[in-house]
Amino acid sequence: MSSGPPRTTPHASTRAVILDVIRAAGTISRVGIATATGMTGATVSTVVRGLIDDGLVVETGRAESTGGKRRVLLQLDPAARFAVGIHLDQAGVTYALTDLSGAVVARTSRPGPGSATAAEVVAEMAAEAATLVTGAGIDRTRLLGFGLVFPGPLAPAGVTPPSMRQWLEYPLGEELRRVTGLPVLVENDAAAAALGELWSGGAGTSATFAAVYMGTGIGAGLLVNGLTFRGTSGNTGEVGHVCLDLDGPECWCGARGCLEALAGPAAVVARARADGRLARAAGLRHTSVAADFGAVSRAARRGDAAAVALLERSARYVAVGVRTLANVMDLEAVVLTGPSFAIAGASYVPAIREELARAFFARAVHVPDVRLSRAAATAPAIGGAAMVLQSELVPLHDGLRLPGPLDVPEPPLIAPA
Amino acid sequence: MSSGPPRTTPHASTRAVILDVIRAAGTISRVGIATATGMTGATVSTVVRGLIDDGLVVETGRAESTGGKRRVLLQLDPAARFAVGIHLDQAGVTYALTDLSGAVVARTSRPGPGSATAAEVVAEMAAEAATLVTGAGIDRTRLLGFGLVFPGPLAPAGVTPPSMRQWLEYPLGEELRRVTGLPVLVENDAAAAALGELWSGGAGTSATFAAVYMGTGIGAGLLVNGLTFRGTSGNTGEVGHVCLDLDGPECWCGARGCLEALAGPAAVVARARADGRLARAAGLRHTSVAADFGAVSRAARRGDAAAVALLERSARYVAVGVRTLANVMDLEAVVLTGPSFAIAGASYVPAIREELARAFFARAVHVPDVRLSRAAATAPAIGGAAMVLQSELVPLHDGLRLPGPLDVPEPPLIAPA
Repeated sequence: MSSGPPRTTPHASTRAVILDVIRAAGTISRVGIATATGMTGATVSTVVRGLIDDGLVVETGRAESTGGKRRVLLQLDPAARFAVGIHLDQAGVTYALTDLSGAVVARTSRPGPGSATAAEVVAEMAAEAATLVTGAGIDRTRLLGFGLVFPGPLAPAGVTPPSMRQWLEYPLGEELRRVTGLPVLVENDAAAAALGELWSGGAGTSATFAAVYMGTGIGAGLLVNGLTFRGTSGNTGEVGHVCLDLDGPECWCGARGCLEALAGPAAVVARARADGRLARAAGLRHTSVAADFGAVSRAARRGDAAAVALLERSARYVAVGVRTLANVMDLEAVVLTGPSFAIAGASYVPAIREELARAFFARAVHVPDVRLSRAAATAPAIGGAAMVLQSELVPLHDGLRLPGPLDVPEPPLIAPA
Repeated sequence: MSSGPPRTTPHASTRAVILDVIRAAGTISRVGIATATGMTGATVSTVVRGLIDDGLVVETGRAESTGGKRRVLLQLDPAARFAVGIHLDQAGVTYALTDLSGAVVARTSRPGPGSATAAEVVAEMAAEAATLVTGAGIDRTRLLGFGLVFPGPLAPAGVTPPSMRQWLEYPLGEELRRVTGLPVLVENDAAAAALGELWSGGAGTSATFAAVYMGTGIGAGLLVNGLTFRGTSGNTGEVGHVCLDLDGPECWCGARGCLEALAGPAAVVARARADGRLARAAGLRHTSVAADFGAVSRAARRGDAAAVALLERSARYVAVGVRTLANVMDLEAVVLTGPSFAIAGASYVPAIREELARAFFARAVHVPDVRLSRAAATAPAIGGAAMVLQSELVPLHDGLRLPGPLDVPEPPLIAPA
């Protein structure tokens, strides 16, 4: 029998821990920080002095007296640092400039890259971001860096969705870093959208939820205690590739009967295009899946029975796929986001709610909350910026994490009286 | 736009953090602890003094000289504390006594409770545990408490598997605490098995994996960085209730087409019992699912074609369900455990390996390792004991966690040169 689990060598960045304690508390005294972290008063004082010198933290008045000297309160200075999130998609490029608290200071959208080369796209992203920062009157020295968000996982062929294969060979993030001279973090759209929903309040008070992202495909970003759950290789939440029929149609991923192949937007559009009457009535253009999925959704809203039936069928499968995701993760909430839910969310929300209320495994204990994003168009870009802020606020790179109020519940402890 | 994610108020138990740093390091100096935690030397010295006074930590020699004074090394004293894990199942009751390092000091097994009342079962568990501790020559003051492990989630009716409904009203953990006067932690078998596999080395070097537990039903315990991932209500990993056929058979959970209803041990046994020839050839007794599943497995090993076909069909569904779990969690490894895998694992392992190699979503990046537990019978009891040790070693109750070497990977950072 071995002795204990694999050994670990933990590290902690004192500075980042204290910065996150201040962010989490809103306002807090030095004594409060020492109590929260278990560090000595001397350590806290030294680190706080450095944070004030760097302009990240400001003194903001004194606490109510509790008998003795009133303690000086500290808080983050939201205008101390900024980050730009860039969501690059064939349908359009969205930019969000946020301050250290995650509040959006400026945003803009531009047409998709179309047939532009990758180098041209990078040059345009750098120029647009510079314009956004300058236009907001922000000193470039306060810019922490860029969060660059792509559709689908950025991984070798075989796990890259068809729409992104043209970018496969080009190191977009590396090039953006070279052109701008600033750090660049890269992330897939579903994971960035989840973080964007968290920071912009789309998940309510939940910090453990899935952002189910439906664009051309279907994916999910998973947040556990406010941090992205990335798994072994950054490919978690593949709800589009949950099998719902062992003998179902082949999927581009190589498996059979995937939710995406059975009922994703591309499958809906393929069925609509094959129905001559519906194709004409809905005005399908047979060009992009996104455009034709929008046309089918509008036809359904006008009451076209065939369009309604197609979306109902899709919603039934999506609802069961979301239930599987919820049963595996025991989710507190599901936020539906991405361009296809932004267009057709009303056809999906009731089906998903009903499925979870009826058949979610732990429904006797709780039923996951289902929300339609109010910021589907900007959530990935906001998430991109938030990712950069988190890398400053939360000591991800040092491996120490402070969980949120919805921390993994403990097993029931029955202690002696 | 709101300002940032939901606010949190982090806490840390300095003592538990330092204790876990010492456990993780094996041996470490006070200066090493200060470096690893960011705490001051004075804080570390004070806390270490307390740990030595309590007998949890011992001084164990001096480090190699690096020029100056040779530093005193510290390590856990494995014999300082013990815990007993008890796995209560209809098929049998397993007890494991482990030391602070998780090594099993003594173990025993007893017949299942049969028709005994819950009160009788509690009295017997307390007596057996006392015998185990006394027999190992261990002072009862060194016993931290009990980890009591049950089949299935301990939750209100509707999410409780049929086999456990008789226990639903009785507070087993609370009663065991009352009778023994020691703390009791309770956990379901799949989650405890995962922890048991981690502590006994069944998952190799992985600390982010699923223990897929097949008894009468199918569940999974999920470990992320060596800690149980419990989700919102402690009902994660319900791989038995992943839908594989929207129009499939009804499951006891209320949904249709669940893996468990299609192909779990009870489904295999129902099909075998319905086949008169096979039922006779396999010697089915039509009493317990576990006994008849074992009989079908033995018939398959003898080459009975109908038994082989039943297990192959089951393995095909289980393999797809495991792939879904792996696609959602991006698992590094899967450990197959529990009594039904212990009996019939050889019929399942190849199918699961093939399925993941062929169709796991991120297979171009990595393929989850599939292992058959070598300690399926004792893993839940060991996990029960480990749970108690973790509550001492890892500051679960304070919410601070130190992730392991297989921490959630960071998003790619492209930093300026």
